[in-house]
Amino acid sequence: MKGKKNITIVEVGPRDGLQNIAHFIPTSKKAEIINKMVDAGEKQIEFSSFVHPEWIPQLADVEQLYDLIKDRKNVTYRALVANEKGLERAIAIGVKSVVWVVAATDRGNLDNVNMTTEQSLELVRRTGKRLGDTGVKLCGIIACALGDPLEGDVPVKTVIEVSEAFQEAGATDISLADTIGIANPQKVRQMVTQLVEALPHVNWGIHLHNILGLGMANALAAWESGIATFESSVAGLGGCPYAPHQGGNIATEELVYLMATLGVDTGIDLGKLLETRDFVRSVVQSPLP
Amino acid sequence: MKGKKNITIVEVGPRDGLQNIAHFIPTSKKAEIINKMVDAGEKQIEFSSFVHPEWIPQLADVEQLYDLIKDRKNVTYRALVANEKGLERAIAIGVKSVVWVVAATDRGNLDNVNMTTEQSLELVRRTGKRLGDTGVKLCGIIACALGDPLEGDVPVKTVIEVSEAFQEAGATDISLADTIGIANPQKVRQMVTQLVEALPHVNWGIHLHNILGLGMANALAAWESGIATFESSVAGLGGCPYAPHQGGNIATEELVYLMATLGVDTGIDLGKLLETRDFVRSVVQSPLP
Repeated sequence: MKGKKNITIVEVGPRDGLQNIAHFIPTSKKAEIINKMVDAGEKQIEFSSFVHPEWIPQLADVEQLYDLIKDRKNVTYRALVANEKGLERAIAIGVKSVVWVVAATDRGNLDNVNMTTEQSLELVRRTGKRLGDTGVKLCGIIACALGDPLEGDVPVKTVIEVSEAFQEAGATDISLADTIGIANPQKVRQMVTQLVEALPHVNWGIHLHNILGLGMANALAAWESGIATFESSVAGLGGCPYAPHQGGNIATEELVYLMATLGVDTGIDLGKLLETRDFVRSVVQSPLP
Repeated sequence: MKGKKNITIVEVGPRDGLQNIAHFIPTSKKAEIINKMVDAGEKQIEFSSFVHPEWIPQLADVEQLYDLIKDRKNVTYRALVANEKGLERAIAIGVKSVVWVVAATDRGNLDNVNMTTEQSLELVRRTGKRLGDTGVKLCGIIACALGDPLEGDVPVKTVIEVSEAFQEAGATDISLADTIGIANPQKVRQMVTQLVEALPHVNWGIHLHNILGLGMANALAAWESGIATFESSVAGLGGCPYAPHQGGNIATEELVYLMATLGVDTGIDLGKLLETRDFVRSVVQSPLP
């Protein structure tokens, strides 16, 4: 029980959660969800993604949604970008934080964006140059950082190389994603401990799934190993459809509760968050047309 | 990551799970569930309870059920008893293991069985004498061991006193129950570490609920602190209806998976257990009349 006394939660439900819902949630409902998250005290929200609408039609309304979000002052809204066109769209509407996903394995990256890891990192480097002094923050997510479904364990050396490329491009926030949902407390501790030691100036985050109930056990192991930024989604929305055992992202409300029991401040009101969870469930189950 | 390399799982679904289902599950279906659990490798099963049928009509078929259970040789079937009449019924049909629940707080015990803790312990002592050399094993569960909903933290001294009374009556297996679902990793570690130190010859067990996702995080903390016996139920059936946040017992399949990732042997086949889970869900949702 030796983790940091303050942690940051990055809410990824509006992006990672809603893109996994088969139907399109109306933009006004998405904004309502986000505004409730803010009311509960969430300070970092991955609100949508700038990808081609044909790839992910559920998030085709990213510009309209950004317009409807209130409280731009106290909350950071970040968006996923998947190519340079998406990056330009994000800059054009004034998004202040963009995130790139690069898989630690070529297999995972080819599967995700049809490029090798090195090709994606080249795009990350160009993004760093493009952002320059625009004031837009660059964040990195390393997919398959805790294991690859086919290649198995990923060497810490590989994760460090990808992290260094993100750092060189200007990213200080780098998140380790358990893309395929095969993390466990032992693996989390081993990987995080080595990374924190190797690159101590990175603000390390983690993106976990709740596979067969391991979500909070992995989160506890990550926190104890030095992770201070957690990606999660209200109601556990989202996650990986390819995981060997079904399970969504770790739920923000569970993470807030776990952290409260550890005496860790998240700045989030659990009661309001549980109301938000109920609202999210009602919207996702029966969206208004 | 320093727990024991072998653990015992006590499956409590047939008792704690099914008594919380409003309707009566046919005896043959209960036997089918239990036999599937055995096929998956479960070796200790709390199969039912000897309480007055008016209290818990869902378990009124305890004698008939025991008749239908196969494989009496390799599996220990234990039953809950709540009074001396129940104890005699258990002995009469040849049950080999009985379990008493005593709450660590008078409030909890009065609530549960309308007796003070000391009055229940007197019954436990009489049970110890009655069992004598019958070969029937006595197990103890300490309710509210990890906190009382009204009294808050329970002093470790109190839990030790109840444990000593169980020991004196002949119980070597004593389980700490998070009756109200308020345990957290920190609390689990503190309590278990002190108990293992104070009474090292007890075979300590723990009975956890999965409240707001904390189930496996608490199980991990318990295992690391020296717990080698876990009570759980397939599909997470059961749990406490009075818990502040809804949640069932920890699920056996999740525990088996967590332990497998830690290199801990449970003797249970996860694939078969997941099939058993699906079967349990199908029975509970639409029981045959």
